[in-house]
Amino acid sequence: MEQVKLYDTTLRDGMGGHGMSLSVGEKLKVAEALDGLGVHFIEAGFPSSNPKEAEFFDELSRLELDHALVVAFGMTRRRDRSAADDEGLAVLADSFAPVACLVGKASGFQVEKVIKVTREENLEMIRDSFAHLVAAGKRAFFDAEHFFDGYREDSAYALECLKAAADAGVENVTLCDTNGGSLPGFVAEATAAALEALGDSVESVGIHTHDDAECAVANSLAAVDAGARLVQGCVNGYGERCGNANLASILPALQLKMGFDVVPAERLEALTSTSHYLDELCNMAADPDRPYVGRNAFAHKAGMHAAGVATDASSFEHLDPEAVGNGREILPSELSGKATIRTQAEQAGLAVDDEAASRAVERLKEREHRGYHYEAAPASFELLLRRESGSYSPLFKLESFRVTTEKRAGGEVETEATIKVDVDGQRYVKVAEGNGPVNALDRALRAAIVDRHPDLAEIELTNYKVRILDETHGTGAVTRVLLDSSDGDREWGTIGVSENIIEASWEALVDSLEYAFQPR
Amino acid sequence: MEQVKLYDTTLRDGMGGHGMSLSVGEKLKVAEALDGLGVHFIEAGFPSSNPKEAEFFDELSRLELDHALVVAFGMTRRRDRSAADDEGLAVLADSFAPVACLVGKASGFQVEKVIKVTREENLEMIRDSFAHLVAAGKRAFFDAEHFFDGYREDSAYALECLKAAADAGVENVTLCDTNGGSLPGFVAEATAAALEALGDSVESVGIHTHDDAECAVANSLAAVDAGARLVQGCVNGYGERCGNANLASILPALQLKMGFDVVPAERLEALTSTSHYLDELCNMAADPDRPYVGRNAFAHKAGMHAAGVATDASSFEHLDPEAVGNGREILPSELSGKATIRTQAEQAGLAVDDEAASRAVERLKEREHRGYHYEAAPASFELLLRRESGSYSPLFKLESFRVTTEKRAGGEVETEATIKVDVDGQRYVKVAEGNGPVNALDRALRAAIVDRHPDLAEIELTNYKVRILDETHGTGAVTRVLLDSSDGDREWGTIGVSENIIEASWEALVDSLEYAFQPR
Repeated sequence: MEQVKLYDTTLRDGMGGHGMSLSVGEKLKVAEALDGLGVHFIEAGFPSSNPKEAEFFDELSRLELDHALVVAFGMTRRRDRSAADDEGLAVLADSFAPVACLVGKASGFQVEKVIKVTREENLEMIRDSFAHLVAAGKRAFFDAEHFFDGYREDSAYALECLKAAADAGVENVTLCDTNGGSLPGFVAEATAAALEALGDSVESVGIHTHDDAECAVANSLAAVDAGARLVQGCVNGYGERCGNANLASILPALQLKMGFDVVPAERLEALTSTSHYLDELCNMAADPDRPYVGRNAFAHKAGMHAAGVATDASSFEHLDPEAVGNGREILPSELSGKATIRTQAEQAGLAVDDEAASRAVERLKEREHRGYHYEAAPASFELLLRRESGSYSPLFKLESFRVTTEKRAGGEVETEATIKVDVDGQRYVKVAEGNGPVNALDRALRAAIVDRHPDLAEIELTNYKVRILDETHGTGAVTRVLLDSSDGDREWGTIGVSENIIEASWEALVDSLEYAFQPR
Repeated sequence: MEQVKLYDTTLRDGMGGHGMSLSVGEKLKVAEALDGLGVHFIEAGFPSSNPKEAEFFDELSRLELDHALVVAFGMTRRRDRSAADDEGLAVLADSFAPVACLVGKASGFQVEKVIKVTREENLEMIRDSFAHLVAAGKRAFFDAEHFFDGYREDSAYALECLKAAADAGVENVTLCDTNGGSLPGFVAEATAAALEALGDSVESVGIHTHDDAECAVANSLAAVDAGARLVQGCVNGYGERCGNANLASILPALQLKMGFDVVPAERLEALTSTSHYLDELCNMAADPDRPYVGRNAFAHKAGMHAAGVATDASSFEHLDPEAVGNGREILPSELSGKATIRTQAEQAGLAVDDEAASRAVERLKEREHRGYHYEAAPASFELLLRRESGSYSPLFKLESFRVTTEKRAGGEVETEATIKVDVDGQRYVKVAEGNGPVNALDRALRAAIVDRHPDLAEIELTNYKVRILDETHGTGAVTRVLLDSSDGDREWGTIGVSENIIEASWEALVDSLEYAFQPR
């Protein structure tokens, strides 16, 4: 089987998506998740000197990825200096990333009208830049921006741009449909022309599309049909305007429908959970209608259809949902089978018999129905397993809490929490201030507990995420809180769900401390 | 120019979508909106005798549509009775709808394994049923269910099914990719075979696709490329699983990219407003990233892309947004200069002099640095402009508020807010409960204000989003709240940022009401 490689640009082009904003820690988790799925190249952005990016590339260089290669992204050299004097190229040459991808123009119109250099100068910028990176020992990739528009206007010049990069020794030339307006027939035709022009001078041709015509997936597949062997995009299709090509739809089509070898079959089964996990990291609502991985993708509603599926699944299912880690049930979850539950329990060192596993499956389904999502909260999931299998030790007993936020005309806001709990048979009444209600609650609870459990004082809340489910109900909607905690060695994630954001936060907070407290 | 006709099935197949439920009145409004857009056929469902459907068809028969034809939908006759004795066919024959569309099987596997009749019986069911409807004076359409699967298994039989319908006098045969799994190349091939087999025996061949492989739009366009001249789908792509083909993306592609005559140009300009109106009728959140019609479809972040668009719009726009009734949006951002500020002010009808614009730029930069993000909160941005340009009227003056959340051992959580404000010189002290702190605050504030401003009682909070910025600081991080509000006509977005989630929510809430209150 021929191979097609995936190149995910969530951390670069995907960041242009509306509302996308990731911390360094989250970016690292995105990279790990993509690696786990089997993505071949992870484009990480430009390793600039601003502190946040520098920290990210530094941490990334120490991340142990299974097999994915990190790509540093930049631009062809500036027109007024040599490649050797270009600061951007120097940064890429010095980066730990083994692959450097440069974007450059492949449209005569863009060259003359927008960046205002001559066509020949543009070709020189491409040649020089890549020659410089190749000499520095980099595997070089060329993002041929506006290639399809360029090919439409003046195909000879567009192809010349590609050949300039190939002459300079790039490994891959990727054809970009920058404004996302091309349709599959034209993409196939222009891709075939590029392949013919490049011959054996590059290792592979890639395709980079956007969804402005709702054809990003089909355009990518059309290019592969025409001979492209690398596909750029974002798992979940993040990105500016209508988004980049959605690798979560392209991967299963390539592998299960078109017969290419892309990732090992067991990694493909992680597609659904990876897609949902990335949405959580990016704080995006998971689109339930999303192909392959959506909650509704294999949900059957109408009586006739459900009956058809019962007689023969292929009537209304284009492939086996398990192949992409989804399920026919309304509540897809990689955790929902008994066998998986027992594996998880073993990993946590818990003995879970068959009955307890059944109860845990039921409890899980019921809770996921209410909005819980344990993929991002394994510590809460372990507590659920412990409660069902009798290996749960309560940390304290709540009598009551009260948290108050007050604001005066002067503008100062004051928040204070009072808590009454029983710890090991002793009653504690504590009060604490905080910079918000959850912070105040955390401090008050910790003040009550550390007398008996001084080690729990060390725990730091490292990440706090709030998501409103069913957002059409305004402030009456259900709130899901995800909390990450750390004791310096380990990190763990917990979850709380409630109509009331304070209650949801409290639940995640309690799980965080109880998880740390469990004997193991 | 050759014509392609649109056939919208929102009121039939679209109703299988998750959460779709329409009253009779809403269905009529959907039909009117589709007619206004220039859709040629509106599939209205089966005119059954249940009171709601009967009322709908009755009302629909009296609705004055501009030019769209109503289609009544049913099935080929039951296997155990003649067409003349089939109640379903009788209902269609008696309906006012000039077009009757019957779904029937076009796959030998489905015929034998699922509906369990012989292949020849199935052909007879098709022939009889259509002969009956044609004799009753109907324009008859055939939805060839599972055609693409059938063609893959046994192309000869699949084509025979089509020919059986053609022999019986149908006007249109529509090829259905029922489970949505086909890819464009195959759809083109099978459509071409159908056209060749049918020759001149039908007036047109249609295409009906689903989005399970994220290729519904491309599949529809591939079929038209191969000769289909009618496209079934739903404006906005409503429907079971991943949805039907999205006519809102197919229409502009056919007309503006492929050169077909579909609807008059001025109707195409109603595409964006029609799409949004249908979402509202169907109570669906309008997807901001939706191609052609989404709020982000032509949105450019200030900076490199915005500069590219200013030099040449086609750099990052695949077509003129006005052609589909959408508009270009340059998102306000810390990179925005005075010129953008003044354009924005003009759009809001505000006179902003040079000095005020400078102050607004400074204020914007300072606030974006603190975590404000005005892209999603244009109403808060307008209030910022108003404050800097002296055209801001305060709604009330806060003396203080207090919001308290209490939880007891029993588990019940109670939240209550008390507010003291001055409205038009009068002091109001109000208290309200809520299902969370923000809900309680909203209720208390509204209780204090409506006495003087009863119109503000109507405003509904439609969407509430929370994002923690710099999440590595746990609950000490900065919280950004985005709030969408609606008065039934318009929607507007506001923002609040604070370390304290209550304070951030309060700020967004106040902006929402103040925005509605400003004279304009």
